[in-house]
Amino acid sequence: MIVTLLTDYGRDDDFVGVCHGVIRSIDQDAHIVDITHGIRRYAVRQGAIVLRNTLPYMPVGVHVAVVDPQVGTERRAVALRTGDGRILVGPDNGLLSLAWERCGGVETAVDVTRSPHRLEPVSATFHGRDIFAPVAARLAAGAELADAGDPLDADALTAVDLPTPRREGGELVAHALVVDRFGNAGLNLDHDDLAGSRITLGSAVELEVGGERYLATYAQTFADVKPGELLVYEDAYRTLAVAINRGDAASTLALSPDVEVRLRPQ
Amino acid sequence: MIVTLLTDYGRDDDFVGVCHGVIRSIDQDAHIVDITHGIRRYAVRQGAIVLRNTLPYMPVGVHVAVVDPQVGTERRAVALRTGDGRILVGPDNGLLSLAWERCGGVETAVDVTRSPHRLEPVSATFHGRDIFAPVAARLAAGAELADAGDPLDADALTAVDLPTPRREGGELVAHALVVDRFGNAGLNLDHDDLAGSRITLGSAVELEVGGERYLATYAQTFADVKPGELLVYEDAYRTLAVAINRGDAASTLALSPDVEVRLRPQ
Amino acid sequence: MIVTLLTDYGRDDDFVGVCHGVIRSIDQDAHIVDITHGIRRYAVRQGAIVLRNTLPYMPVGVHVAVVDPQVGTERRAVALRTGDGRILVGPDNGLLSLAWERCGGVETAVDVTRSPHRLEPVSATFHGRDIFAPVAARLAAGAELADAGDPLDADALTAVDLPTPRREGGELVAHALVVDRFGNAGLNLDHDDLAGSRITLGSAVELEVGGERYLATYAQTFADVKPGELLVYEDAYRTLAVAINRGDAASTLALSPDVEVRLRPQ
Repeated sequence: MIVTLLTDYGRDDDFVGVCHGVIRSIDQDAHIVDITHGIRRYAVRQGAIVLRNTLPYMPVGVHVAVVDPQVGTERRAVALRTGDGRILVGPDNGLLSLAWERCGGVETAVDVTRSPHRLEPVSATFHGRDIFAPVAARLAAGAELADAGDPLDADALTAVDLPTPRREGGELVAHALVVDRFGNAGLNLDHDDLAGSRITLGSAVELEVGGERYLATYAQTFADVKPGELLVYEDAYRTLAVAINRGDAASTLALSPDVEVRLRPQ
Repeated sequence: MIVTLLTDYGRDDDFVGVCHGVIRSIDQDAHIVDITHGIRRYAVRQGAIVLRNTLPYMPVGVHVAVVDPQVGTERRAVALRTGDGRILVGPDNGLLSLAWERCGGVETAVDVTRSPHRLEPVSATFHGRDIFAPVAARLAAGAELADAGDPLDADALTAVDLPTPRREGGELVAHALVVDRFGNAGLNLDHDDLAGSRITLGSAVELEVGGERYLATYAQTFADVKPGELLVYEDAYRTLAVAINRGDAASTLALSPDVEVRLRPQ
Repeated sequence: MIVTLLTDYGRDDDFVGVCHGVIRSIDQDAHIVDITHGIRRYAVRQGAIVLRNTLPYMPVGVHVAVVDPQVGTERRAVALRTGDGRILVGPDNGLLSLAWERCGGVETAVDVTRSPHRLEPVSATFHGRDIFAPVAARLAAGAELADAGDPLDADALTAVDLPTPRREGGELVAHALVVDRFGNAGLNLDHDDLAGSRITLGSAVELEVGGERYLATYAQTFADVKPGELLVYEDAYRTLAVAINRGDAASTLALSPDVEVRLRPQ
């Protein structure tokens, strides 16, 4: 059975390796896919977006996500089955919410905070090891979801909020949502949001960020503009993003999550 | 069979990938767990502590560790079986010593420096690839420990030294042992060392590091103090550690391995 | 079946994890080896050298490499079988060329740009996910190479150029080719190139880089010189390299790819 992991643990410490060890101690032949451990520390919304974007490329399985600033408090730990048959496991802080929307909604949910599958004693700071990994491994090994914890009403689950783009006259007011390690910044826009905006493939677009204005091209790919030039493009998850060919758009334009980006046709 | 790896190779180069390739060339179906490759370069003691802490979460198997500043010199390469049935493989520089103490002591040891399982020619600088990985893979595939090298007296093996905490009047004099990537610093103390010290859960503790004094709370988890505040807490391996909620205690307090930390009840 | 991956995707984002997910969606039991994802962004030649050096340590399988500055343009995507039975998959920009030379040449090649195994719709920027990973997984799962794309003449494939070392009087004029994360710089020289140069094991060598001169020892391993001292040594891939024991030669000597390094016996 497939177990996928998405966390903000990074790769420098032993957190990820210990979760692998716990999973293999329970289900030696599990296939583990590390979606990423590079979510920015405590960046729940970034984690939620990356999980939503990447799950469609994962085999159906048990999908653990841990970005958990409230670890050790009363926040719930949950496991849930989606409409398309995936099982999601993680803290109930919104991290899983965009993924379950994408995957057919929540069919059944349980509160695994005091799951019988936990490793005892549960530490106050490392629920990835003590709750999420062992619960996921038991589920991957065939345990019933209903036996993993206490029944929970799907309506009680926490969801994340995303900023909403809007139109102001001829311009689009969007926001940066996530920035990758190349400095490409994904916006809360997709191609369809451009309908009727006079921004078309190959045309020039003015971007305004923090009062500064920049000229970009709405292009299909990086190679459509010269090195050092700005482009707006549909990224691999069909989200509109801002980039600089062979450069770093996020640092050049001071783009970080929630920063407003105004787009004007030229 | 499980093979675990713990090294200071990092993830940026191909060292880890090549060790995986060598293992799979010998034992295609091995389950490989990367405990961590983020041990600081040449930090034998940090490696020894992390190996000791994490092995209890790993299935019983063959456990390779490589932090090896003397690679290419006369230092021995060893493989040994612990009292609880694990096999440890690595350089004989103390790296394995805290783990074998935790895992029931050394039952049998062999010198694998000239193991028949080595890849020839053995390079002077990459014994992970040429000695440790192939020896481990043969053992994981069922080879006898005694056939992996020359007999070796367990008393001849090298162990690491750790600083010892002490009491001076009403204060505890401890030392930082390891620092993780979040700047949390583990001390050579556990909860039991606080018995009779008047430091109790929820109380204030003064920390003195390098002549500077800081006020901390002895807390259960990060969320028990405000962002930016110092805490002392029992970490996930039941070691007392110093941290700043959403901050970096190691850089703020100039904590690095062996630095003395004085704790005083307030 | 073994699938190996070598890319410049890094580990901070989800690119690598998504490729794993795509492979496991097609061939759930594939053994995946991550050779490295730390090739410098767009460094096709570094990728080509690392692939050539590491493939001999990998089981025969399907070997994917992605360092792809022209992604989204007309550059071809290719898959090919080498004389020793490996299958290489990647962009046709020279990245695969040193590896196929090392592995017995190209036996058969196909253009997989419009492979039936692609994920549709193919994005303009993430061919690792949409072309290379699914093509590799199908081939690993037993699909015929000839069915993966259109026939392609091996002579039409692109190869990389490497600088050539030369002699000028008593000195060797070489070049840095790759730098690892420890700052060790591999040169375009091997031990045989030193024949007749009066540089012998244990002797002193003067290095000239960018007009500055440095004294090094031609040593077998790091421990043969004191911490902080320069050495030239045969690295684990039998290439001559420049290093500083417990230091960073690349930053100290300003060594980066293609920088000229003059070696003079002392």
